[in-house]
Amino acid sequence: MNLTVSTLGSSLGVSCERARYAIGLMAGTSLDGIDAALVRLTGSSDALQAQTLAVHHSPYTPEEREGLLQLIERGRPAELCLWDAYLGERFAQAASELMAQARPPRLDFIGSHGQTIWHAPHGALLGAPVRNTLQIGQPDVIAARLGAPVIADFRTRDMAHGGQGAPLVPIVDWLLLRHPSEHRVALNLGGMANVTVLPANGAPDTIAAFDTGPGNALIDAAVYAYTQGQHTYDRDGYWASRGAVHERLLNYLMSHPYLEQPPPKSTGREVFGEALLEELHRMFGRLQLHELAATFTEFTARSVADALARFVSPHYPIRRVIVSGGGVHNPALMARLQARLPDVSIVSSAQYGIDPDFKEAVAFAVLADRFLQGLPATYPNTTGASRPCLAGKLATP
Amino acid sequence: MNLTVSTLGSSLGVSCERARYAIGLMAGTSLDGIDAALVRLTGSSDALQAQTLAVHHSPYTPEEREGLLQLIERGRPAELCLWDAYLGERFAQAASELMAQARPPRLDFIGSHGQTIWHAPHGALLGAPVRNTLQIGQPDVIAARLGAPVIADFRTRDMAHGGQGAPLVPIVDWLLLRHPSEHRVALNLGGMANVTVLPANGAPDTIAAFDTGPGNALIDAAVYAYTQGQHTYDRDGYWASRGAVHERLLNYLMSHPYLEQPPPKSTGREVFGEALLEELHRMFGRLQLHELAATFTEFTARSVADALARFVSPHYPIRRVIVSGGGVHNPALMARLQARLPDVSIVSSAQYGIDPDFKEAVAFAVLADRFLQGLPATYPNTTGASRPCLAGKLATP
Repeated sequence: MNLTVSTLGSSLGVSCERARYAIGLMAGTSLDGIDAALVRLTGSSDALQAQTLAVHHSPYTPEEREGLLQLIERGRPAELCLWDAYLGERFAQAASELMAQARPPRLDFIGSHGQTIWHAPHGALLGAPVRNTLQIGQPDVIAARLGAPVIADFRTRDMAHGGQGAPLVPIVDWLLLRHPSEHRVALNLGGMANVTVLPANGAPDTIAAFDTGPGNALIDAAVYAYTQGQHTYDRDGYWASRGAVHERLLNYLMSHPYLEQPPPKSTGREVFGEALLEELHRMFGRLQLHELAATFTEFTARSVADALARFVSPHYPIRRVIVSGGGVHNPALMARLQARLPDVSIVSSAQYGIDPDFKEAVAFAVLADRFLQGLPATYPNTTGASRPCLAGKLATP
Repeated sequence: MNLTVSTLGSSLGVSCERARYAIGLMAGTSLDGIDAALVRLTGSSDALQAQTLAVHHSPYTPEEREGLLQLIERGRPAELCLWDAYLGERFAQAASELMAQARPPRLDFIGSHGQTIWHAPHGALLGAPVRNTLQIGQPDVIAARLGAPVIADFRTRDMAHGGQGAPLVPIVDWLLLRHPSEHRVALNLGGMANVTVLPANGAPDTIAAFDTGPGNALIDAAVYAYTQGQHTYDRDGYWASRGAVHERLLNYLMSHPYLEQPPPKSTGREVFGEALLEELHRMFGRLQLHELAATFTEFTARSVADALARFVSPHYPIRRVIVSGGGVHNPALMARLQARLPDVSIVSSAQYGIDPDFKEAVAFAVLADRFLQGLPATYPNTTGASRPCLAGKLATP
């Protein structure tokens, strides 16, 4: 049983001795559509380099979004079976549009996360504990349409080995953003804010990753509510930069028990979202949007800084924070973050070849490459798996 | 995009220069349980040889069977997700039990068909035609438990290329049963009777495969009905050998329009099963079970012989029929078949290393080997796909 998978890539004509052109495909749980990133990869093993060459977002139509919502809630196996093929075509379409736009010299392979339909890290059936996850978007359809191998189903093996199947991005942060002598953090400012801690010269087993609290979710919720849905986010920090922080509200938010909880931990919009916004309205009355936006923006910045101060810097004094996600385009948020972390260099992931708006799509191209090299992508310290695990299944064209 | 997959096996330490020990796993739509076969494979490409070393059947519990029936009818994605992992454990258990029983020198890989939950060769969604199929029994769980690579999801790529995703066994018949100078037929006597036509010295594009009509389904239905469920099949042809053929009934059955329909064609219990038995009761009154069993047994034999005479022998005079499936153990059926095909050698597939009761399980070990060699398993003439297709996805341990 001493099988090795060290050269799957070379079996597919993918050699680490030359550059690989790969597409990463991602569809988030927000059901907004498909992100596609074309990535040029060079080097191998731990000496990998990546450059985002082109990106493309293919939004779901309202009909598709509604259909997927219904599928998740009350779909039958027959419908799931058809949606799997349908989304395979849609993922393939997104990749084809990106190919037409970018015209790379070749396409070596695709990494496709798929659309998550269910994630059950703590399930049980007929009295037996079972954990599993379900992503659809048939890889064989993508492989057939693009004529390239597809690596997909990145979470199931980790869960078969007792892991949570998430997060998957930390190894990508480690591959592309770690430094031999500088302690770093990769910060993603999406709905939530999550960090990957990359100790200087650390091996994969030194990676830690957790959610610090909200990223843009509370700010977005306030803007949406106060503009009656005309705006969905605080573009360029427009409102936040016009308001003052409401100190009593900020103090209340900073006393949230999630912030004290030691990592590993994760949170979501059910904790830091609309429900919390309504609770705050009941407690503090209705404020002005610019006041709320300023306070929530400061809360995000401060909760990130607070998490680093509490849980990270005592062990690894962080010198650089590399930011991705929508929040990187919010100068008010970036300025408040810098103010809270005065001794830290705060830069966009773009400086390291990672389009900050397509980081997850880029990550699945990198994870596919990692799979083809036969190297693990998840570790006991990132997902709780019992051993380092390869991530992915291979569909050939 | 000129990728080759010719050496996937060697990337996994599986070389065709030595014998491969492989397990094939199959669970049928009858939901009776999991078939496992340990197969020793030698040779490569078209010069493959297989020997069934051991077999094991792991029946579903009544609770599992009932749960799967409900899942198929009205399960939600959340349940499907858990069943996928649960059946992964059950398939792994079946394979582990077989390993403990057979103790082969090593296990090189596993081919797992999974449990079919849905098969939609003619679907449509949001106005777009989509075809797809859904088998569960998470391969990553099997790979994790057995420590061997698993090839699964054998039908999806063929369907992505416009095929029906079925049948998959003909290429296995071709690999193991064809002959340089003798026209042969592989006949499987399951619920339905299906044939694979293997012209002498023919390439894969000469294979034809179709259902000739019922295999054991009508006989089983009669035995079950007349014994109030105390017997489920005509063991050793007990009833058939004690009765005379009812000629008027036989003539009626032989006039069934399915028999005239030219191949490719397939049928099922909805045509040749309980509903037909009830219709016959209305038309012919209630007969004795031995009379019915003899007539249905003759009908199976005659419809097979008729199909060969109509559609096969004019092009390829068949000299040998190699039989698998439960019907091979019914001497009454085998004798009637021999009587209808007097110039043909009728033999069990056991003579060619294929356990006749585990042929499909054996087939998925062979198909996994074929995938690892990077060779196609379905062809336009077997499934209707637009081109020869590899079958399978790879899950590494």
